[in-house]
Amino acid sequence: MNAIASPTRLLQVSALTAERFAPFGDVIEITEHTPHFTVNQGTATRYHDLAHLQPGSGRIGISLFHSEPCALPIEISILENHPLGSQSFYPVSGQTWLVVVAPPGNNPQSNEIRAFLARPDQGINYAPGVWHHPVITLHDAATFLVIDRIGTGQNCVETLLAEPLLIKSVQ
Amino acid sequence: MNAIASPTRLLQVSALTAERFAPFGDVIEITEHTPHFTVNQGTATRYHDLAHLQPGSGRIGISLFHSEPCALPIEISILENHPLGSQSFYPVSGQTWLVVVAPPGNNPQSNEIRAFLARPDQGINYAPGVWHHPVITLHDAATFLVIDRIGTGQNCVETLLAEPLLIKSVQ
Repeated sequence: MNAIASPTRLLQVSALTAERFAPFGDVIEITEHTPHFTVNQGTATRYHDLAHLQPGSGRIGISLFHSEPCALPIEISILENHPLGSQSFYPVSGQTWLVVVAPPGNNPQSNEIRAFLARPDQGINYAPGVWHHPVITLHDAATFLVIDRIGTGQNCVETLLAEPLLIKSVQ
Repeated sequence: MNAIASPTRLLQVSALTAERFAPFGDVIEITEHTPHFTVNQGTATRYHDLAHLQPGSGRIGISLFHSEPCALPIEISILENHPLGSQSFYPVSGQTWLVVVAPPGNNPQSNEIRAFLARPDQGINYAPGVWHHPVITLHDAATFLVIDRIGTGQNCVETLLAEPLLIKSVQ
């Protein structure tokens, strides 16, 4: 009998893997398969060139994001994308976090939306135009290193979902 | 009477600040003066464009470094620089760490070398050509997100110091 119905369609959350995230961009992580080599007289290992950064007509810059936490259940009702360049997030304050994405193109349908639980040692890089929700942390405020396009032009497009989704739990 | 003398000249360590590091590049951190604005419907703050990334003839990429710890006292006997591009390090595993640098130019003299203790929430960006020691962590292995030039050409120059230095303690 509510005038405005809460979303009833649930969005399931999967563990973030490079394979699952491939349609949306890169996962920045160290696995046994990550290309690497030894540097600094043998004292360090470099896991090399882990994201396809695309500055388009701009340049790549480094910023820090400080993000407030969300409490479950979380309503997913708005997505955004950056058509002019890629955008990477890597957590630097040690939390698990949630990534919510949909493929680039016209306004995303609810059944195209995917949610992933990322470990504290996983970052991601959204390809240009990939729809995404702002990054979500569940318990504490979090800080992310953000590596993305800096330049002129309209590089943030937002859309309201016709059918919002609800994340009720994470694994 | 030793055939090879240990270094006796000490290198003092100062707290890392943007002002002290200015001759060498940028400090990537959040301070009360950092340019910022609100994003994501008010749920996040973006501290914007914190490093002067210089890809030169290459492109900017993201890598991860896994670095073994060093025990005090630490002998500083070798420095390197990257003439073709900038190189940023940001710690993602929560440690304090040491940055050792000297101004760009000919082989650095010992009295030109500076050492800084960085907090776990401080990163740095070396300007092209700035001499630096490999990053140093003291207690545990550490992981850093590295944002630097990827491209062809000879982009790593090393030099042995005529007069090695010794870091005996850090504050």
